[in-house]
Order: sequence, then C-alpha cells, then structure tokens
Amino acid sequence: MKYKLIIVRYGEIALKAKVTRKRFENILVNNIKNALKTKNLQNKLRKEWGRIFIYSDQIENCLNVLKNVFGITSISPSIETDSKIEEISKITKLFSKEKLDRKKTFAIRVKRTGNHDFSSQDVAVKIGNEIVNETKANVNLTNPDFELFIEIRNDKSYIFIEKIKGYGGMPIGTQGNILAFIDSINSILASWYLVHRGCKPIFLVNKKIKNDVLERFMDYWFINSKIIEISNKDNIYEQINKIATLNNCEAIVSGLNISRQSENVLDKIKDFKRQIALPVLYPLIAMEDIDIKRKLNLIG
Amino acid sequence: MKYKLIIVRYGEIALKAKVTRKRFENILVNNIKNALKTKNLQNKLRKEWGRIFIYSDQIENCLNVLKNVFGITSISPSIETDSKIEEISKITKLFSKEKLDRKKTFAIRVKRTGNHDFSSQDVAVKIGNEIVNETKANVNLTNPDFELFIEIRNDKSYIFIEKIKGYGGMPIGTQGNILAFIDSINSILASWYLVHRGCKPIFLVNKKIKNDVLERFMDYWFINSKIIEISNKDNIYEQINKIATLNNCEAIVSGLNISRQSENVLDKIKDFKRQIALPVLYPLIAMEDIDIKRKLNLIG
Repeated sequence: MKYKLIIVRYGEIALKAKVTRKRFENILVNNIKNALKTKNLQNKLRKEWGRIFIYSDQIENCLNVLKNVFGITSISPSIETDSKIEEISKITKLFSKEKLDRKKTFAIRVKRTGNHDFSSQDVAVKIGNEIVNETKANVNLTNPDFELFIEIRNDKSYIFIEKIKGYGGMPIGTQGNILAFIDSINSILASWYLVHRGCKPIFLVNKKIKNDVLERFMDYWFINSKIIEISNKDNIYEQINKIATLNNCEAIVSGLNISRQSENVLDKIKDFKRQIALPVLYPLIAMEDIDIKRKLNLIG
Repeated sequence: MKYKLIIVRYGEIALKAKVTRKRFENILVNNIKNALKTKNLQNKLRKEWGRIFIYSDQIENCLNVLKNVFGITSISPSIETDSKIEEISKITKLFSKEKLDRKKTFAIRVKRTGNHDFSSQDVAVKIGNEIVNETKANVNLTNPDFELFIEIRNDKSYIFIEKIKGYGGMPIGTQGNILAFIDSINSILASWYLVHRGCKPIFLVNKKIKNDVLERFMDYWFINSKIIEISNKDNIYEQINKIATLNNCEAIVSGLNISRQSENVLDKIKDFKRQIALPVLYPLIAMEDIDIKRKLNLIG
C-alpha cells in the first residue's frame, strides 16, 4: 500500500483547563511543522479534536521525523477514504491480500464517531467475513498475527495496520527555559530529560568541548536552541548567572549523579547552591552509572 | 535441601581508594546486622574479600530481609562443605535428584580459587558425568533448565542453584544526610531514590499526614531514621532550614515533578530556591506520572 497520510496521536491530555490544552496543541503543531521543515519535507497538516493529520508524498521520511518529536505518543501511516462501507471494504481487502494467508490469524478493530446507517459491530462482522472468504485466514481477537484498524469519523475513514510508538512527554516550549551547562555527555542526557518534559534549553558550552555531539543530538531531537560559549578564564558561576538572566531561564540543569566513582557529590551541589542564583536541577541525581549508559545509547 | 548459609554479593565495587571501599563494606555489614536484628533473626556473619556469609537457622526469613538491604546485588542460599571432590559430589547429587530427570537439561558452573589437585574443568566434567548417570538428564550449557553453581574457595566450597537479585545501589549512610519533606506519596518515592544511592534520610512530616504509610515504607526498606513533625502554623521554610541545620543535612529532597496536571512547577522550584538555605533535589523532576505510579507499586 502506498500511504499518503500519517495520523498523529498525542495521548489523553488530562489538562483540566481548555486554555492550557489549546496552547499545548498549538505548540505541538508548530514543533511538528518546524521539524518537517528542517528536513525539507513537503506536507499539509490538518488538526482535529485530539488528532493531527499529516499528508505528504514522503511518508517514510516524515515518520522518521515524527517519532522524535516530543509530545507525540504514537503515529500510524494510514489510508484515507470516505465512510461508505464498500470503499472501506475495498481497501481492507488490499491490505489483507498483502498480509494474510490461511496460516495466519487476524483481528479487526473498528472505532466510529458520527451518524451512519451501520454500527462498528456491523463493519467488523461484514469485513471480517470478507477477509476470511478471500484469504482463508482465521479470526483471533486476543493475539492475532495481524491487526487491521478502521476509524470512521463522520464522512471520512482511516485504515491502518501499525501504531508506531513516539517518545511521549510534552512539546518543547510548553514549560520554561532552562540553561543546560554541557560539561559531559551525562549533561546532554540530563537536558534530554527536561526537554522531554517540555522545557526549552539554552546550551552553555566550554570552548574546550567539541560541539558535534551536541549538534547531532539537537538535530536528532529537533531542538532548535542557542549554543553559547563561555570562556574558562572568567568566573564560571558569574557567567552562568549572567547568561541565565539574559535568556530568561528558570533553572539550570546539570548531569551530576551520585556514583561510586566520584565522592562528595553533595558537597559540589552545596557549592552550586551558594554560587548560582537560579535553582539547579539534577535529573540524573539518583541514577546508576549503568542506567545512564543504557539511556544514552537509547537517545542516540 | 536445608540451607544454613546465605552468600551475599555486593557487586564489583569500582572504588579506587581502598579506604573508601573498607568504609563502604563496614557500613553495609552494619546495615545488614541491624536489619536482621530488627526482624529478630539470629545469625552469624562472616566477611571475606568481596563476599559476606550469613549463617542462620531461618534462611527464608533472612533472604526476605536481605533482598531489601541497599548495596546488595545478589544473594544465594547455599550449602557449605569442604573442598574434597567427594564431598562436593555428594551434595550435588542430592540437588540433582531433587531437580532433574531425563526430560530436563542442566549446566554446571565452577569457580575455583586456591591450591587444589584438580582444576575447575576436572570438577565440572566429573560431576557432570555423575549427574548424567544418576538422572539421565542432558547437559545444555547455553540455556539449561537448571544451573548448579560450585564455588571452591581454598578449603571451603559453596554449592547453590539460585542467584536472587537485590536492589543494588549503595548502603544507607555512605552518602550524607538528606531532609525528606514528606507531603505526598511521591515524596516517599523521591527519598527512596536517594536512599538507594546511599543517603541517610531524616523525615519531615506535616501533622495532618498519616504516618503509617511512611512507617511501613521504613520498615520494608530497613530505614532507621528520625521522623520530625512540623506545625502548619509557623513558617514552613523557616522550620525546614532550622531542622536541616540541627540534623546536619546536606540537601532537601522533594517529590515534585513536571506533570501535565500541575502548572508552574518551575515557579515553585524558584520559590524553594529563594526560601530554603540548602540545595533541593528533585529526583522525580523529569519522570512521567505513569512511571512514578509504576515505580511506587514496585517499591511497595
């Protein structure tokens, strides 16, 4: 099947206030647009209640981008059609011919909203029977080899067979700015954690440290942020305080953790507290070295 | 088999300084003694290079205690014997009769240190053959149904079939004191993370909050710490600062995280920074609510 559409889900947002939800959604849409633009992917974007639809001729490339945009919980390359049962049936048959034979099992999952002269159950039964006749495959609702999803929303229907997991979290920019002091690979992971929760980072690097790891990281996660270099000669704390104020940062993030190798981490932290005006966050503080390494491999 | 001994492993300690390693081990031994004493379990404890041996008539109960002592990576109920190959053979036969038949597969893992007139390989071959003759089971070194471990250390040998995982981390008290402000179940989890890394907590509770959850938590993890009640009437920050100083705390721990439900977490954190003299640590800061719930179930 040749896909032209991706359905983007961003989870059940449990925000009580409608205003916040709207703001959150708008930021997510903008982040998606920017990420696709960065990779030169032509697309048309449409927003509906709880869903974003992205139309493009480069679906594979778009999927690769979207899976790394924070806030997205899952994506499905899909076929769009109208809500006539014959049209839905035609497409599902194409899918099942590709994917099924007499040795395989399948399940049909139907969701429906709007007014139609059939129920979800009707669709499932009719199409299920057709697939059985066509392919001799068997129905297995609990543990099928192949799942076929049909979502009927008013006069449009969406058919897909995959739900690719995203990283979830919150869209970058829904929380405040943080100043990420990059003095090690661990500090990149520490900022990943807060960016994943919606904070927008400003990166502070020492002239000595090579920027290519950081730039690859930003490119991979579609983080479009300032990188500021500081000098080793002047007082580092003073520079941090000044840059944080200038850039409206609400906190500093550090990659420090309590590890067996380094002693007196709590002393260092007390020192930071005295010297740095803003609060310092340590998302890795209680992580073991081995878990940090594993996570670093995961985030690329 | 009736066990009378537990082998306790505390991982490959990568500490460079011998002094630190010795301090770390002594604290672990004391924590183990206290935990067993709390549950009224009679025992005799012996320390060797990299291992702790615990002898008791109540092995099952001891295992239950030890699996929750931080710093321990794994435990094995074991049979101790001398290092004559006939003795080792006698015990392994008892094990294999209990556990094996012609439909099962097994592997023998031998470790040896000291001077003996046989090699590890000799032991594995001889005992492997005997088990095959006795039970008709088959050898499978990569994915056996049953593993038999033989550790020969000078004139003593240890035979066991189980390695029960501990929580690892660092023994309570190897890092500094922290003041854990318990205002929610999340704050208990936050302090768990730091205690797991070796910090010793002092608990601060509000009169309104029930202590039984906290007490069950302390009992479960063998945390023997002060609980201090504060009043709602006076300035909370002033009380925190005072109690932290009196108890030699190096940091405060809070269960705050950036979640979709609560807004302006960074504002709260800035407020803490201004009002509290010590650094505040937020181990859950970048965790999602669902992960926090999952971990809370895990820690009991």
